[in-house]
Amino acid sequence: MRPVRGIGDVTAGDDLAELITRAAPWLADGDVLVVTSKIVSKAEGRLVEVPADGPDREEARQRALAGETARVVARRGPTTIVQTHHGFVMAAAGIDASNVDKTHLVLLPADPDASARALRADLLRRGLDVAVIISDTMGRAWRNGLTDVALGAAGIEAFRDHRGEIDPYGNELSLTQMAVIDELSAAAELVKGKRDRVPVAVVRGYPRSAEGSGAAVLVRDSESDMFSLGTAEARASGLRAAAGLGDQRAANADPAAVERALDTVSGLLTAGVTRRPDGVRLTPAGDGPAALIRLGTDSHRLRAALAAEGVPTVATIDDDGTTLTFGDPS
Amino acid sequence: MRPVRGIGDVTAGDDLAELITRAAPWLADGDVLVVTSKIVSKAEGRLVEVPADGPDREEARQRALAGETARVVARRGPTTIVQTHHGFVMAAAGIDASNVDKTHLVLLPADPDASARALRADLLRRGLDVAVIISDTMGRAWRNGLTDVALGAAGIEAFRDHRGEIDPYGNELSLTQMAVIDELSAAAELVKGKRDRVPVAVVRGYPRSAEGSGAAVLVRDSESDMFSLGTAEARASGLRAAAGLGDQRAANADPAAVERALDTVSGLLTAGVTRRPDGVRLTPAGDGPAALIRLGTDSHRLRAALAAEGVPTVATIDDDGTTLTFGDPS
Repeated sequence: MRPVRGIGDVTAGDDLAELITRAAPWLADGDVLVVTSKIVSKAEGRLVEVPADGPDREEARQRALAGETARVVARRGPTTIVQTHHGFVMAAAGIDASNVDKTHLVLLPADPDASARALRADLLRRGLDVAVIISDTMGRAWRNGLTDVALGAAGIEAFRDHRGEIDPYGNELSLTQMAVIDELSAAAELVKGKRDRVPVAVVRGYPRSAEGSGAAVLVRDSESDMFSLGTAEARASGLRAAAGLGDQRAANADPAAVERALDTVSGLLTAGVTRRPDGVRLTPAGDGPAALIRLGTDSHRLRAALAAEGVPTVATIDDDGTTLTFGDPS
Repeated sequence: MRPVRGIGDVTAGDDLAELITRAAPWLADGDVLVVTSKIVSKAEGRLVEVPADGPDREEARQRALAGETARVVARRGPTTIVQTHHGFVMAAAGIDASNVDKTHLVLLPADPDASARALRADLLRRGLDVAVIISDTMGRAWRNGLTDVALGAAGIEAFRDHRGEIDPYGNELSLTQMAVIDELSAAAELVKGKRDRVPVAVVRGYPRSAEGSGAAVLVRDSESDMFSLGTAEARASGLRAAAGLGDQRAANADPAAVERALDTVSGLLTAGVTRRPDGVRLTPAGDGPAALIRLGTDSHRLRAALAAEGVPTVATIDDDGTTLTFGDPS
């Protein structure tokens, strides 16, 4: 693991292959070059002009953020975590104001895999067969502190896959797809500097076997991500869903789930509740209009509690009460 | 970065310092030793006996999982992600059936920081001043593939803190606390083997400055974690919250938030809705009991929608309708 020093300031249009080979004449075939995304962005002119200070600066930053954002994942105080158009989940879409003059913000490279391929090709043209990883610093869920990960890659596989291998005890290994280009990015960060003095590090001796298909395969699509939304945002979406609950019949209502729902609202309801084989009937607790209004409120409470347990319902209102039908008994 | 080979099978009671120094006589002061948690667990006897197969095995595994679980974070299909008693968020609480005979499961070390301190002290007694990191493989939100991170550490700082530093352009760096022991764990994984042949790697040349306070500082407490629950679980918790909404007055209801809530339910309500300075009044759409029940349902829909926008309410039911009061106009 070796830092590449002396690359200096990078500006739009710079030839990174030239800058890197001049600073590291010792680069050799088989090396893995880990390049901080910042200098790739700068060379590609991925800069946004902003006022050096004042409220206009923040407004310009917000505009840049909106431009880079595919969807907002979570917000808390001044922190906005978004999914970028690339699919990366990052605070402020990876837009950075450090290591650039005060009148510019640096965006992520538009297509980091393409940037990695281009740099690898440029170096190949100079007779150097090296892998290229474009890395950046990211936060994580659940753990404090940041680590570097791979945004783009060329000439190296993203994963080392142990699935299907057998350990010395005869157990088949499962779920052991290691994100090696993230690990290489993390390793490289240890010898790089945050102050742009060392934007490139070289890993020597790591076995490469294939051209690889880039770093985009590391992006988990939000459909299959169990953490695609911040907790507060997902909770609000649940409350919003409760507001809009529509008629839907449970294919097969789990009696235990129904019991849990009834437990959730036990003590909260004034209406009478009668279990039926395929649903619940609610009737007013007394005479008069207020008891009927209360029954309506109660039935929607129970309906939300059932939905929380994965039991959709059909609500039928008549003059004597409400029936929540969830389907056939299972 | 160097692998330590030839450690062989580790069993309960083994002296890891002895095994490691015998396998790596070239260890030197200042080295960082990254030890796979599996061999630490085995040496400490953190094993659970289980049937080699059959339904009893799964039942025993579930019991072990429950024992290691502080809270369930997310579930999908066969995958359970929990927060362990240590605070780690891991699939199956880090319990592993690989690299152990079929009649045992391996739990995480009970106190990985203490294990790291003990191993470091044992090595110090042999005249070796090395840092110790105990690592394991973890999944992450948002990104496919696994990486190794630090569960325990001794003799090394968990973070390298750039906050307050000034970059060459005069910008103060913020939010740049690098989790270096995670990066060292990731780096070490690159030279270790998944099949237990290489459970230890050594990083030489990494500058250590302080004894450090262990790896527990990397655990983000769930209160401050924006992703403390799976999206589906948080959404269900929102639905459950809608079922149980109680009276609470908004300190200062944002009129835009109220408008968003009214938008959420627009087209869903049959009741009449009248905006008031400090709340919303709902009145029945017609005569008869069913209209009153519907009004009750509608008012709870709107109440959930307001809660989703962060506007708590006090619900007052009388014979003519429901008033949702959210506080003073702002």
